[in-house]
Amino acid sequence: MGMIGGGIGSFIGDVHRKAAAIDGMIELVCGAFSSNAERAKSSGAALFLPEERCYVSFKEMIERERALPEGERMDFVAIVTPNHMHFEPARMALENGFHVVCDKPMTLTTAEAEILETLVAKTGSLFALTHNYTGYPMVKQAREMIANGELGKIRKVQVQYLQGWMATAVENTDNKQASWRVDPEKAGAGGALGDIGTHAENLLEYITGLQIHEMAADLGRFGAGRTLDDDGNMLVRMNNGAKGSISFSQIATGEENNLAIKVYGEKGSLEWSQEHPNSLTTRWLDQPPKVFTPGGNDLYPSVAATSRIPSGHPEGYLEAFATIYRNFAKELMGRISGAEVPAQDYPRVADGVRGVKFIHAAVESDRNNAAWTTID
Amino acid sequence: MGMIGGGIGSFIGDVHRKAAAIDGMIELVCGAFSSNAERAKSSGAALFLPEERCYVSFKEMIERERALPEGERMDFVAIVTPNHMHFEPARMALENGFHVVCDKPMTLTTAEAEILETLVAKTGSLFALTHNYTGYPMVKQAREMIANGELGKIRKVQVQYLQGWMATAVENTDNKQASWRVDPEKAGAGGALGDIGTHAENLLEYITGLQIHEMAADLGRFGAGRTLDDDGNMLVRMNNGAKGSISFSQIATGEENNLAIKVYGEKGSLEWSQEHPNSLTTRWLDQPPKVFTPGGNDLYPSVAATSRIPSGHPEGYLEAFATIYRNFAKELMGRISGAEVPAQDYPRVADGVRGVKFIHAAVESDRNNAAWTTID
Amino acid sequence: MGMIGGGIGSFIGDVHRKAAAIDGMIELVCGAFSSNAERAKSSGAALFLPEERCYVSFKEMIERERALPEGERMDFVAIVTPNHMHFEPARMALENGFHVVCDKPMTLTTAEAEILETLVAKTGSLFALTHNYTGYPMVKQAREMIANGELGKIRKVQVQYLQGWMATAVENTDNKQASWRVDPEKAGAGGALGDIGTHAENLLEYITGLQIHEMAADLGRFGAGRTLDDDGNMLVRMNNGAKGSISFSQIATGEENNLAIKVYGEKGSLEWSQEHPNSLTTRWLDQPPKVFTPGGNDLYPSVAATSRIPSGHPEGYLEAFATIYRNFAKELMGRISGAEVPAQDYPRVADGVRGVKFIHAAVESDRNNAAWTTID
Amino acid sequence: MGMIGGGIGSFIGDVHRKAAAIDGMIELVCGAFSSNAERAKSSGAALFLPEERCYVSFKEMIERERALPEGERMDFVAIVTPNHMHFEPARMALENGFHVVCDKPMTLTTAEAEILETLVAKTGSLFALTHNYTGYPMVKQAREMIANGELGKIRKVQVQYLQGWMATAVENTDNKQASWRVDPEKAGAGGALGDIGTHAENLLEYITGLQIHEMAADLGRFGAGRTLDDDGNMLVRMNNGAKGSISFSQIATGEENNLAIKVYGEKGSLEWSQEHPNSLTTRWLDQPPKVFTPGGNDLYPSVAATSRIPSGHPEGYLEAFATIYRNFAKELMGRISGAEVPAQDYPRVADGVRGVKFIHAAVESDRNNAAWTTID
Repeated sequence: MGMIGGGIGSFIGDVHRKAAAIDGMIELVCGAFSSNAERAKSSGAALFLPEERCYVSFKEMIERERALPEGERMDFVAIVTPNHMHFEPARMALENGFHVVCDKPMTLTTAEAEILETLVAKTGSLFALTHNYTGYPMVKQAREMIANGELGKIRKVQVQYLQGWMATAVENTDNKQASWRVDPEKAGAGGALGDIGTHAENLLEYITGLQIHEMAADLGRFGAGRTLDDDGNMLVRMNNGAKGSISFSQIATGEENNLAIKVYGEKGSLEWSQEHPNSLTTRWLDQPPKVFTPGGNDLYPSVAATSRIPSGHPEGYLEAFATIYRNFAKELMGRISGAEVPAQDYPRVADGVRGVKFIHAAVESDRNNAAWTTID
Repeated sequence: MGMIGGGIGSFIGDVHRKAAAIDGMIELVCGAFSSNAERAKSSGAALFLPEERCYVSFKEMIERERALPEGERMDFVAIVTPNHMHFEPARMALENGFHVVCDKPMTLTTAEAEILETLVAKTGSLFALTHNYTGYPMVKQAREMIANGELGKIRKVQVQYLQGWMATAVENTDNKQASWRVDPEKAGAGGALGDIGTHAENLLEYITGLQIHEMAADLGRFGAGRTLDDDGNMLVRMNNGAKGSISFSQIATGEENNLAIKVYGEKGSLEWSQEHPNSLTTRWLDQPPKVFTPGGNDLYPSVAATSRIPSGHPEGYLEAFATIYRNFAKELMGRISGAEVPAQDYPRVADGVRGVKFIHAAVESDRNNAAWTTID
Repeated sequence: MGMIGGGIGSFIGDVHRKAAAIDGMIELVCGAFSSNAERAKSSGAALFLPEERCYVSFKEMIERERALPEGERMDFVAIVTPNHMHFEPARMALENGFHVVCDKPMTLTTAEAEILETLVAKTGSLFALTHNYTGYPMVKQAREMIANGELGKIRKVQVQYLQGWMATAVENTDNKQASWRVDPEKAGAGGALGDIGTHAENLLEYITGLQIHEMAADLGRFGAGRTLDDDGNMLVRMNNGAKGSISFSQIATGEENNLAIKVYGEKGSLEWSQEHPNSLTTRWLDQPPKVFTPGGNDLYPSVAATSRIPSGHPEGYLEAFATIYRNFAKELMGRISGAEVPAQDYPRVADGVRGVKFIHAAVESDRNNAAWTTID
Repeated sequence: MGMIGGGIGSFIGDVHRKAAAIDGMIELVCGAFSSNAERAKSSGAALFLPEERCYVSFKEMIERERALPEGERMDFVAIVTPNHMHFEPARMALENGFHVVCDKPMTLTTAEAEILETLVAKTGSLFALTHNYTGYPMVKQAREMIANGELGKIRKVQVQYLQGWMATAVENTDNKQASWRVDPEKAGAGGALGDIGTHAENLLEYITGLQIHEMAADLGRFGAGRTLDDDGNMLVRMNNGAKGSISFSQIATGEENNLAIKVYGEKGSLEWSQEHPNSLTTRWLDQPPKVFTPGGNDLYPSVAATSRIPSGHPEGYLEAFATIYRNFAKELMGRISGAEVPAQDYPRVADGVRGVKFIHAAVESDRNNAAWTTID
């Protein structure tokens, strides 16, 4: 793995490194951690990388790594930069024969997203988008239960993703996480919408197996001077006739990382919350609520296989994130070794395209006073 | 108290009787429990009422009670009939000098609601609307905290009221609760909207002290053959600029009586759920979450006075309902005794008017594909 | 109902009155609320009782009521005085043909307890002891599940009853609840042990259908100058070979009324907590945890019949307490009307005897440095 | 790091590897994964180790690694074998100049434990015992709050560690985890006592800063044919006069890994549960309960520094385990580099001695029918 972005002190770069490390399948071999040569070097040193593989730009890294003998060069890049710096590195990596792990939202524009989708198809390279919340075992159990018809036809959905860390003007402090997120040049058309709204969209579609057909979005810009949204409420209509809502916010004072979903079908319903990820509550027409847990009874085998530790030993955010990397690595090792490896469960370039379209549909709906807008 | 409706076997009549009885301030002295003479009589007998005060119609009851000497006649009527039977008894009671406790929604039409409002003003009679959820101590604590500015300016609100008991076609069974609720003649323009959506609206406005300025409502009719909504999602904009959503449903399979609210201000936020009514979770910019409980530390005095039992002794739905009756009775006893009693905290005729307008605004918005619609 | 003790301002007297009132089956007709004539009268007046039925002693009440014609006199007494004032009124009431509802612990000594037991047997009068926590629907569901073998043979039990209201020297303030509880003359041999430890014992034996065979008790007296225990930990061995522990405290700072129980059998286990009484969590060898709720699916019919309101409408402490009164009243009305009424489910004089023996066994064990001591 | 035990398929070996990998500070360089040469080799291969560093015994590993040049050889051993295989490898590693990470309980006998303690003192080597539950941020916050007197003098403690996975005779299936745990030759004098009771003891003493002075232990052997305990209840008296209880079980049907603690002081109390590790509930004489979370407000700086991810991103068992390794590695890197590194917070050899004494004291108490027994 070669990392683009994620110099020491960054939040998400460190998460990617830890997540990639847990299962012992992936080794960080190089990085373009910073365009500042000093910082690039010191970041690499802190990560025990040899100086010659600490590059000052993704271009340098891709070119120089490509020049290394096969077996020595990195196998894939992990792109952990702010949003506006996803597209170019991803394109160049794909064009140079590298596989890609990329943070979300995938690109700023739909056009860019579709270029990447085309490139992935053309090159046959692997592309994982780190919608990490789909890595939780109970999210996978939810998906399996619905896919297997346990809940019956889905009628109602509710997703929320609530944070409070931007309730005050943190972008005016030295908070690097905040400053680029409020800048349309770097974050793109969506603020909270792109940052966390896309996670809500992805989780909803992953769990239900449905797609949002149309939405009516009312975005808020509560922080003084913010041009991008920091809050939003949406009505959604799914492609099977289900109705529901999505709410997201980064000004929900006191909330930490409250991503939660409820799905109601004709026969049963389920509820899951990211802050308490190790249980999945299900409710039924004709039996008491049942609570599934990782490692517990009656899980689908593919779900049971997701956990790394026995029941009652909490698995968290890093483990869910690591599951994206592990599944990506399994496929990748198949590619490298030539072994037949069945397709693994991780978010792909198509999910990235969908997320970017979601952002733009929401922005358009909001511009039209929350008029119904389709995603396409 | 004379009761209109609520024959033995009814749900809400029994609730009203128990709620009125708890504090020992109110005595049931007569009733028009049913238009079926036999059932009226047997219901009264089961409640230990003398036969001569078991009437077969509210008209008979109001006329005959009025003819009794003061001090013997009932002081007020409690109207616990289906929605379409609220207006006439309430009007007649008011016109004949009786005070009124009335179930919600207050009337079928806004015109009727405004007639009652005018009558209450003209007669000076007391009128309580049983938006019982405002009777919970922690709901009152929430209201006080916001009124006192503890949360700062409110930015975001979220209310849900989810039930699942109509997920199947219960109206085709012998479920009397369901059958009138799906009949527009009896329920009015709203189904779940009128039945529980109004509670959501009332709770939101009670707790925040704000009003819904406009809404975009997307109603669902999931049960086969239903002409009234059994589900709804709304975007709301409050009169102070806050934004949010309301979701209600009676087809949310497995949900029992899940009324819950979240309110986010610039300085803090709060969260309350009716199914766990004895805690109020608050979150803050600069301190850890604090959880208030009835009888616990740091409550507003008026809240502390609401509880009947010490902390840790759960208070439930009946107690909250009883608080509406108790506060109404306190004012009423002042009227009767001539003592000065300050205005008590219970929902009034104006809340009823607002609820009826809310129903009609939501129906209109839905008819216009969730177009923004003001309440007025 | 005639009440002994419970003048206005008392905690438990008010609870008894409210609990007795909820179901409309019981009317308070007289009282000996206080030995202070003025307070007796004003208490009665506040309760809308005629002055002539407000007595200044239980003796006067029992004598004068007995002299009233049948049908006019009270049917039973409710004894809500401090512990040392249970025995004499109960004895006299029984000897004079009245039925009895009595607070717990039943008496100060085992001898007294056995006298009452004998008297109940001799007179055939009804005797209810208000171990109110057995009135919760989910406690009854727990009992039924175990009685029907769903959990298999019971192996392990754990009960706690934790309060914190005596963490400081409240007995030195004007807290009337505290002052008699620390006085061996009034409270008896046990402090927290008698006050709440007996509830723990009763709940354990009620739910499991087992008896504590022997115990090793380590009592604490943490409050300065207290001669009675304010805290205790016990090992217990049940009469079927199960083992476990009981912990109770009134100096558990910050705890409100945390009575909770866990029972583990060979096939399943259950967990219930009084502060969240409306769910019963069950866990199983071979299926996911199931959570039962009042009014929910798969309850035993007798349990379902306990609830007064639909699922999701929280029932609390007063309702559980009221269930003791309701079941007592059902039997009593059978007695009065001559109708056949099957034995109802409420704690009886034998439970009272057992509670008193439990207190004395624990005190003896503690005196012997927590030596194993049998209850008998 | 060189690992002793933990061949592919083992539970705890894999946990150690993942925990050591997360922070990128530790590299697995060799292993004696199995005494079966084939399995030793294949385990190493699966972990990407060179064949020449996959040894068939800890003796071979220690000898051969010692012979490697400094900088090439492993820096420390991680001992992840069953209990009876802790002592010899630990002794040999220490005697050969290696640092040690060792699983718990440290040894079978107190004599062995004291030999290791002496060796650690003599060699000056680092020794970490993986009482991993002390690695949770909220456990550290609890410890800090008590150490800083926030709760006042501690009066009451309660610890439980409940599992259900041995409720049936799993040792008769092919469950390798179970079979050695029921064998006194391999597990030592304690069954559940040694396996999880020691975690309870360690957590209690870590959080409170107190020591158990004496205990009265009642052990259970519920599984047919088991000679070691599979359940236990204890009264404890702490060295400051506090009282309390410990309960542990591996036959608590349906429980997963329910380690939980409550501590009550004169001014406040706290409650923490391993299955919900990311909150610490605190309760107070004079303010509402406050709930601390990792990354949240008002944490002690040393606690805040423990988390790897922002608030609301759940941290789990592996992260807590990794914190033991991280803190050990920090000290170790200081040793290697010669830099001054202050003593880090992780369990040491003295904790191991104490755990072994705890096991033997409990066994002795149980043998004497739960007589009070001191730990020393």
